[in-house]
Amino acid sequence: MLESKNTQKKKIIIDTDPGIDDAMAIFVALNSPEVDVIGFTTIFGNVYTTLATRNTLHLLEVAGRTDIPVAEGSLVTFTKSTKLHVADFVHGADGLGNQNFPPPKGKAIEQSAASFLVEQANLHPGEVTVVALGPLTNIALAIELDPGFPEKIGQIVLLGGAFAVNGNVNPAAEANILSDPDAADLVITSGADIVAVGLNVTHQVIMTDADRDKLAQSNGKFAQYLCKILEVYYSYHQESYRTKGCVYLHDPTTILAAVDPSLLTYTEGVVRVQTNGITRGLTIFYNTMKRFGEVTEWSDKPTVKVAVTVDAPAVLELVMERLMNS
Amino acid sequence: MLESKNTQKKKIIIDTDPGIDDAMAIFVALNSPEVDVIGFTTIFGNVYTTLATRNTLHLLEVAGRTDIPVAEGSLVTFTKSTKLHVADFVHGADGLGNQNFPPPKGKAIEQSAASFLVEQANLHPGEVTVVALGPLTNIALAIELDPGFPEKIGQIVLLGGAFAVNGNVNPAAEANILSDPDAADLVITSGADIVAVGLNVTHQVIMTDADRDKLAQSNGKFAQYLCKILEVYYSYHQESYRTKGCVYLHDPTTILAAVDPSLLTYTEGVVRVQTNGITRGLTIFYNTMKRFGEVTEWSDKPTVKVAVTVDAPAVLELVMERLMNS
Repeated sequence: MLESKNTQKKKIIIDTDPGIDDAMAIFVALNSPEVDVIGFTTIFGNVYTTLATRNTLHLLEVAGRTDIPVAEGSLVTFTKSTKLHVADFVHGADGLGNQNFPPPKGKAIEQSAASFLVEQANLHPGEVTVVALGPLTNIALAIELDPGFPEKIGQIVLLGGAFAVNGNVNPAAEANILSDPDAADLVITSGADIVAVGLNVTHQVIMTDADRDKLAQSNGKFAQYLCKILEVYYSYHQESYRTKGCVYLHDPTTILAAVDPSLLTYTEGVVRVQTNGITRGLTIFYNTMKRFGEVTEWSDKPTVKVAVTVDAPAVLELVMERLMNS
Repeated sequence: MLESKNTQKKKIIIDTDPGIDDAMAIFVALNSPEVDVIGFTTIFGNVYTTLATRNTLHLLEVAGRTDIPVAEGSLVTFTKSTKLHVADFVHGADGLGNQNFPPPKGKAIEQSAASFLVEQANLHPGEVTVVALGPLTNIALAIELDPGFPEKIGQIVLLGGAFAVNGNVNPAAEANILSDPDAADLVITSGADIVAVGLNVTHQVIMTDADRDKLAQSNGKFAQYLCKILEVYYSYHQESYRTKGCVYLHDPTTILAAVDPSLLTYTEGVVRVQTNGITRGLTIFYNTMKRFGEVTEWSDKPTVKVAVTVDAPAVLELVMERLMNS
């Protein structure tokens, strides 16, 4: 049915851990006519997975889009570790700015996230884009479930890594990759068509206090909702980055990389993830320029695209427009 | 005696593993009136330590400077591993372009490199600069021998690391750091006044075929000698970097960073070395900009200076001048 209505639209599944900037990204996606959001899968990261599921269902009720299925993802990492590092200090204890929203009426479908991802890739081979806004556990599990998944999925646009810049959990590691480095290494070397959007790019896309004021003054329902939850996110940025009145738009930038890839530029090479030691969670990009004397851990691995520049004003403008005209 | 003659000159000890570009660096140093080379220590890296000692003695005989003591360094890594990765494919099996030079007449002093370094730091507290052109094993051993060494040594200018760029042994690691990551992490976090010159800078300083021709046409004895040994080094670069007719001047750039620090610019932050896993030997620089939520492996560690730009034409000009006017 969706196919017949929207043959020209890009089908996307959003894997998410809302999260304040996830909420913003989800709203932007739902208000982007270029894409058709055919499902959500949830994962731990900003919050635990069960809360991510609850928040996703809540956000879809806010948006009036309870028609879109939500499949709950893994509660543990790919290697079954339950030592999760959730970022409640960034997004609030509830993941949505400590607003204590009432529980959603809807619930997740019976299928697991991995099973839903595999099913959709099989239903629409080569046509589905997964936008992964959290740790890559569900995608790794989908590959484990169906080794043909990397071939069948259209593209995976992931928010993850810190290429040639410091991480955001520690100097080496970005939060999504560090939360499940084993899953990340498996996915990134799986041979799927992958675009990695890292901190080197998302730290260029900034929303200021003035932008927040514009959201507050608009009548857009997404804009109005976000103004209620943004305070915690602004406070975290002020404390951590010693800046005043601005936040990074990690997740909305990544969504827009799927909506309109031409907003960013890319380089291509092999990425590996360090899975242990003091630089656990580090992403190392090999530009394939040098011919090394020996076989390395990067040799003969599939390449991925890594975002290197972004048209930040254009991304911000699109985000603002899609939140205000809602 | 040296002190009374050269009070204004910077005293330097060169820790080296010759090596073709080490030979070039040593000649440049010996012909630099700004510095007084008060000793050499040797280390594995481009070749095994015993060959590094032999080559250093040989080069001093070529230069007519057998008055300068050579102290042999460690034959094994700081953790006593003998699994050394020597770069004979870069410098030739003899480390000096496969020229099969006759053995030197002189020999190393009885003292170990570490003991010599500690002795000189105690003799001239705060006045000695160590220029480390190889793995940091000897410096780590000097710190182990005398925990006050980082305070007493004037400065350590080291060739090592790849900051925000790929390594030269594999995508993650630069050769000197990878050859003894444990020693490197110990030295770099020791609190000594440290300047790290990495591949991000040394890959900007290039000698071309035209420059080699100029060396060949000059009457300088250093220039003449180098022209005999450079071929292997050029061949390696062509094979590995798919370039034609140019080589990187890693070691001479590092020597000149000690001779005239204003040839480079620097940033300051905390550097840690990954000692295991697929990114073993990786250097991760923390710019101290973000305040992380948790204590990290970079927290409360002393900062070092990391070279970020270099006046490459000026460095090349100085190298050429000091090799040709010899």
